[in-house]
Parts: sequence; structure tokens; C-alpha cells
Amino acid sequence: MVTTGANSDEEAAVSVANRSFYDAFEAEDFDTLSSLWEHSDRVQCVHPHWSTLRGWAEVGASWKAMIEGPARLQFVLTNEHVEVQGDIAWVTVDENIIGEGPSATVAALNIFARGDDNKWRMIAHHGSAIMMPVPRNQL
Amino acid sequence: MVTTGANSDEEAAVSVANRSFYDAFEAEDFDTLSSLWEHSDRVQCVHPHWSTLRGWAEVGASWKAMIEGPARLQFVLTNEHVEVQGDIAWVTVDENIIGEGPSATVAALNIFARGDDNKWRMIAHHGSAIMMPVPRNQL
Repeated sequence: MVTTGANSDEEAAVSVANRSFYDAFEAEDFDTLSSLWEHSDRVQCVHPHWSTLRGWAEVGASWKAMIEGPARLQFVLTNEHVEVQGDIAWVTVDENIIGEGPSATVAALNIFARGDDNKWRMIAHHGSAIMMPVPRNQL
Repeated sequence: MVTTGANSDEEAAVSVANRSFYDAFEAEDFDTLSSLWEHSDRVQCVHPHWSTLRGWAEVGASWKAMIEGPARLQFVLTNEHVEVQGDIAWVTVDENIIGEGPSATVAALNIFARGDDNKWRMIAHHGSAIMMPVPRNQL
């Protein structure tokens, strides 16, 4: 189990791919974001409160629409854990999101697969909003 | 990509493990549910609106508390997709939940690992509530 960062070259490579994905989203760089996903029918994605999208056509279109949308978001990533087994890796990370509205935290589970070119690409993303209890003195 | 059910022995075995997990939860049978999880530090779980739980001690305790709680839930599973690569498998499934309150749908991503005994056990569960738009005539 990795508590912070990575303790092997493989985990470090997955961590870099994971961070590059959020960097590309922040930079509104769809081409780079797209290159970090496997372009296949097996890819899947759940955005907070959405149902599951399947296949790169659907998944890619959702990220493109978000990038082209009006909101400009910044991600502060915390509690990253990377696990690798064979050619599959999975990352859990908290996305602390700074946008125009109140900031929010999304718990994400990202699955990556290692391609024949040894590059890790995302094959599944599942994000869900963490419900923050409102402090009593703000009720 | 599997659209419904499974198209290989491996995918069928993963599908059975996945369904057994929900059956055990419905039957409030914690021992069976526990046997369907890997008991390790790497297991992870996100319940709808929760932050990520890590390690079997934390994850198991959350399922035990839910099973021992007052709510009795039934799961109707739809849109199941199973993917297998090496000794890792992942399942996306919609959990249509019937309880005492209004019914709800949770999009789930479950990751399984094949053990040395060839048995598939859950190593990650991420469930997020799907937001259903309210029909205009019910507003």
C-alpha cells in the first residue's frame, strides 16, 4: 500500500500519468487529456451524479464538453494512493476543486492500463462528491 | 467489452462474485460479504457522499455497520459490465436500491483481484448516487 507518492518506478509512472491528466484538464488542453486515455470501447467514466459513460466516443465527448464549458477549474490533489498489479493500476485521490462557486471535494477512483508502448493510460474514472457536514454554527 | 452478463469463463466468475456480494448485503450476511473481500491493507471503498476508506479494518467495519443498521435494502442490478485483464477485473453496475425511503440508483465501480486459490475477491468499491432530474410536472 502506498500512503503518499509512490514507492516503485511503476507506481511513480502511474502517479505521473494521473497528475498529467488533471494538469491537462486545468490547462483546458483536450489533446493532451485525450492522449492520456486509452481510446477503446472498454473505457468507462462516472462524473459526480452522472450515470456511467462507456467507450471513448462517449467518455471523450464528456471531457471535451467540460473543457469547452464556461467553468475554469483548479485541482488540488490530496490523499493519493497508487496500486499496481500486472498491467493494471488504480489510483484513489481526492480532487479539491477551486472554481467560481464554493470549493468542493470529489473522491476519485482512476484505473489505468499499461499499453504495448509501456505507457499508462486511463481506462476508468469514477468521481463522486463528498458531502461535507455544515458546522453547527453555520446552520 | 461485455454488454450484458459475461462472454468468458473468467468474466462469468467475476460476475458471480459481484452478484454474491450484493446478495450477501441483502441477506444481511456479513460473514459471506466479508469472504468476498480481500482482507488486506490495499482494499478501498467509497460509499455515496463518503470519503475514501482504506484497509479491510475500516472497509469491513463500514459494511458491518450498514448491515447492522435499521435499513433493510434490496438491490436490483442493471447495466452490468465486466472487464478482466490478468488477475484484475472491474465491474460497473447500477445498483437500483429499494428501501424504506424513495428508491435510488447508485453507479458503482467494483475492482476484483484473483487470489492464489483462483477466487475473485473485491479490492475496491466506489458507489455514487446518480442525480435524477425531477419531472417538470412534479416540481
